[in-house]
Amino acid sequence: MEETKKAVILLSGGLDSTTLLALARSEGFSLYGLTFRYGQRHLHEIAAACRVAERFRICEHRIVDIDLRAFGGSALTGDIAIPKGEALSETEDIPVTYVPARNTIFLSYALAWAEVLKINDIFIGVNVVDYSGYPDCRPEFIEAFAKTANLAIKAAVEGEIMISVRAPLMYLSKGEIIRLGQSLGVDYRLTHTCYDPEPDGLSCGQCDSCLLRKKGFLEAGFKDPIDYAL
Amino acid sequence: MEETKKAVILLSGGLDSTTLLALARSEGFSLYGLTFRYGQRHLHEIAAACRVAERFRICEHRIVDIDLRAFGGSALTGDIAIPKGEALSETEDIPVTYVPARNTIFLSYALAWAEVLKINDIFIGVNVVDYSGYPDCRPEFIEAFAKTANLAIKAAVEGEIMISVRAPLMYLSKGEIIRLGQSLGVDYRLTHTCYDPEPDGLSCGQCDSCLLRKKGFLEAGFKDPIDYAL
Repeated sequence: MEETKKAVILLSGGLDSTTLLALARSEGFSLYGLTFRYGQRHLHEIAAACRVAERFRICEHRIVDIDLRAFGGSALTGDIAIPKGEALSETEDIPVTYVPARNTIFLSYALAWAEVLKINDIFIGVNVVDYSGYPDCRPEFIEAFAKTANLAIKAAVEGEIMISVRAPLMYLSKGEIIRLGQSLGVDYRLTHTCYDPEPDGLSCGQCDSCLLRKKGFLEAGFKDPIDYAL
Repeated sequence: MEETKKAVILLSGGLDSTTLLALARSEGFSLYGLTFRYGQRHLHEIAAACRVAERFRICEHRIVDIDLRAFGGSALTGDIAIPKGEALSETEDIPVTYVPARNTIFLSYALAWAEVLKINDIFIGVNVVDYSGYPDCRPEFIEAFAKTANLAIKAAVEGEIMISVRAPLMYLSKGEIIRLGQSLGVDYRLTHTCYDPEPDGLSCGQCDSCLLRKKGFLEAGFKDPIDYAL
């Protein structure tokens, strides 16, 4: 009898990580979702992650508190204003929504949990198309992290597990991700995308993240099921 | 005029990280100490880190809460009993005091802070002599992490800084570390080493960590200034 395949999934509750989760499940993985409460400007993201985890009936959903505000340096942790109403950046600039070492920290925690659960596969929803300019979303970073991971943990060094960091959305456009999710039956009403929502959770419709989502649905040829303030 | 060299130092308050700090200062670095409160069995370690930071008048000392208990899997986070009275392990076995992905997580936070402060150098007191068997103390792990770090962060990708992870104690025996510290004027009364101290902070004298410290002072030819229960 084949053992059940398990995977740790970094689940933000956004469009990408929710599609990622649906994709991993379609590949037969039992899912362990990991969400971080890291001093985001709002907790609507966390609520979305919980909705998604519940809807997909994943094996376990852990929410870990980490204090990225301790170091500052990002609009997403409250130090810098979030840009509004700007055209989607076509430049190579890294946006102010960048959070120092975020994916390195997220993957390090995922690695710890993977070792404890004896899980080989860590899924992360990073992407270089519709490039946000975050260096820790690039394939060379993901590959380097996986190498480091296999040198870092006892279970890998002893040959019990071998960590793969899987980023299957890496080369898909936002529209392609949405089409993939639709084909897997993802209900995008569950997801939250906006960097700066209204107090009731309504998406602003103007931040980079909202603009990219709208563009993606347009490209995919589906109607976005969520409402926007603008 | 040359700019001040700055370094982030992982400071546990133990013998190694305190010697490391003294060494970095002797090399002319301004020091930014980073200590983690991670569900250790006791907080005497944190108190020692604060004593050391104060004595050395470092520029800044940050204590970051991280919840390594969330995943379990280690004697140091409370899941497994700490071995007592055993001879120092000469085998290749990795001890139960191993914490999954600990140094990967610690270095990830150090990386975030280094980026915010625009600091090139991260000091970590890992060591392969008197080998504890922790995979994330080996030079191949440290090198892999540094490579990953320079791919992960905006300031490195943009050429503003270049991260070096410095582990100058790597090839020193415990006795050599103590001799180095003595030559730098370290007051080892400030440090805390024991995995399982009495409620008042008195070191047990029997855990692996205490045994290694005692052996180190013996080898160095100095009297250990702290007291032990046994």
